[in-house]
Amino acid sequence: MFELDERLANDTALVGDLPLSLVLLMNDQRFPWAILVPRRKGLVELHDLSAADRRTLADEAAAVSAALQKLTGAEKMNVAALGNIVRQLHVHVVARFAADDAWPRPVWGVGAAVPYAEGEAAACAAALKSALGV
Amino acid sequence: MFELDERLANDTALVGDLPLSLVLLMNDQRFPWAILVPRRKGLVELHDLSAADRRTLADEAAAVSAALQKLTGAEKMNVAALGNIVRQLHVHVVARFAADDAWPRPVWGVGAAVPYAEGEAAACAAALKSALGV
Repeated sequence: MFELDERLANDTALVGDLPLSLVLLMNDQRFPWAILVPRRKGLVELHDLSAADRRTLADEAAAVSAALQKLTGAEKMNVAALGNIVRQLHVHVVARFAADDAWPRPVWGVGAAVPYAEGEAAACAAALKSALGV
Repeated sequence: MFELDERLANDTALVGDLPLSLVLLMNDQRFPWAILVPRRKGLVELHDLSAADRRTLADEAAAVSAALQKLTGAEKMNVAALGNIVRQLHVHVVARFAADDAWPRPVWGVGAAVPYAEGEAAACAAALKSALGV
């Protein structure tokens, strides 16, 4: 059975379920930042996915990227599967702005997360869920 | 017509052509690092790709990731479409090791590239081309 990595669970709010992936929102108000986690056990690398699941994940990551860019008006979307710290396969989708705290560098490892105020993460997650139509 | 961004051309050696993407090798001996560039004009975001091209790109990125991990014995592969500096849509596939210069952080923006010695980049590119069967 698929179980969500504990660190991913602790750092995020739930957005909802796409056909393959659990969609999460990072609890870091510095960056509008979603994470997709395919609900499959034991995956580490993108090339561990079956061809069918890989294509579904590409569709789902593109849908989240388009929705988050539309919601935020971001200048650029960053989409990445890294996994150097959390091994469970997950894909980051981050909305980037030339004025953000990390630009033009990537967001990972830059400073410390700034959690949303009470209720704000859930509101952002709900907006993204609605934009995705799930 | 598709034209490769000049900075990508300057920083890389040619590996070869997959059905959709040009495959390049970053001229940085610190990290085994390939780049895929879909040969389509005017693309910036992953969600700019047609659904068919997006699935092909997912297949090609997975093939490059699997081949580069097999060639290098990397502990983790990092796959990312960022584009904060070079806007032309491109996907990084980087072989990572716990002993490398950036671990566990991402490689982008870490220090300066260390070019390969004469002939080495071409040899690495040829090895990757052979592993990809192109």
